[in-house]
Amino acid sequence: MDLIEPEILAGKETLTSGMTGEIKRCRIAIDQALEGKETAIVSSGDSGIYGMAGLVIELVANQGLLDKVEVNIIPGISALSAAAALLGAPLMHDFAVVSLSDLMTSWDDIEARVDAAAKSDFVLVIYNPRSKKRDWQLSRVREVILKYRSNDTPVGIVRNAARKEESARITTLSRIDESTVDMLSILLVGNSKTRIIDDKMVTPRGYLEKYGEKKTPTTSD
Amino acid sequence: MDLIEPEILAGKETLTSGMTGEIKRCRIAIDQALEGKETAIVSSGDSGIYGMAGLVIELVANQGLLDKVEVNIIPGISALSAAAALLGAPLMHDFAVVSLSDLMTSWDDIEARVDAAAKSDFVLVIYNPRSKKRDWQLSRVREVILKYRSNDTPVGIVRNAARKEESARITTLSRIDESTVDMLSILLVGNSKTRIIDDKMVTPRGYLEKYGEKKTPTTSD
Repeated sequence: MDLIEPEILAGKETLTSGMTGEIKRCRIAIDQALEGKETAIVSSGDSGIYGMAGLVIELVANQGLLDKVEVNIIPGISALSAAAALLGAPLMHDFAVVSLSDLMTSWDDIEARVDAAAKSDFVLVIYNPRSKKRDWQLSRVREVILKYRSNDTPVGIVRNAARKEESARITTLSRIDESTVDMLSILLVGNSKTRIIDDKMVTPRGYLEKYGEKKTPTTSD
Repeated sequence: MDLIEPEILAGKETLTSGMTGEIKRCRIAIDQALEGKETAIVSSGDSGIYGMAGLVIELVANQGLLDKVEVNIIPGISALSAAAALLGAPLMHDFAVVSLSDLMTSWDDIEARVDAAAKSDFVLVIYNPRSKKRDWQLSRVREVILKYRSNDTPVGIVRNAARKEESARITTLSRIDESTVDMLSILLVGNSKTRIIDDKMVTPRGYLEKYGEKKTPTTSD
């Protein structure tokens, strides 16, 4: 709630709940809407990407309220868009988005997705890379990606994307310092063509290769 | 340019170029910046997702201007976020984003990515699904996905996302009417758990399964 401009909240009732308790939070909002109030559930980033949008729809349906409560999803700037912009242009080509949280998905499924995406040369966007309790998953993911990509593959690590405290740094697959990665971080792993140009991470779309420009110099030239 | 609010453009010089000529357009902007003007290249959606952000950085580097022209990328609401919001909540879980345009990427690479993403149960977001000249790729992609998913897999087709003429419809893998899909369309193909709830496409994140809620009724119940 602290991230919302005060003038947007002026004159409006606000209700908050803790970090967990997603179901409870949605229920409270549905109850408010049932009382006839225009109600918004606020998500950081885009509520439509790993957000609360789906749970609200599921709960409204579960309670048999589809005719009574109209749900509209308002898109936002996703963490992946904000992180990509801070890093340069890593998402100019096909990419796969994977959450490493195995709270509600089996680790085998997560690892199979990372493997498939790495093998077929997707840029990878990794949500929830590491927490105090989940401290080995990122190492394992790096091993899987290294089966198909070089040590020098650029990796962008963005923390607190689009917030005041935002920070972004670019490193390589072999040099990720995992101790600096936490739940507020998002990782972008380049594909086989991603390069570091100056202080930016760029995945070429292919315009210059196709239309005959000379090769872009990189910091390793 | 017609999509930009007139007050934003008031008092500003505007330059336009045709649909193709991406390199030329970026060069014009770089030349303007070199003259000391604050210059913006406007992309629809998010310039950081299949947009112009990368080409600008590459051209600035190619011309040896990294010290003279500072490039900032401003993220936007991507077509995938806008399309997902119109459809409901299809991107609550891992997803892969693939462009079917084989102008600068080989078809074999594109098909391998679709295959890998379908096999490992990613939700699929498909950009550039079909044009007058590229009329067989979407059929082929459907065949590939059907190796791993059922005929009833929900598919959302969104046209002109976030524009006045926007339209969204939900169908299934076996029922896609390809003749209605064009270059202004984006397709979202559900994973094995995606369901149609009322008129919305929802990929459950897993909260309700995990925390013991009863199953959400779907339109097929």
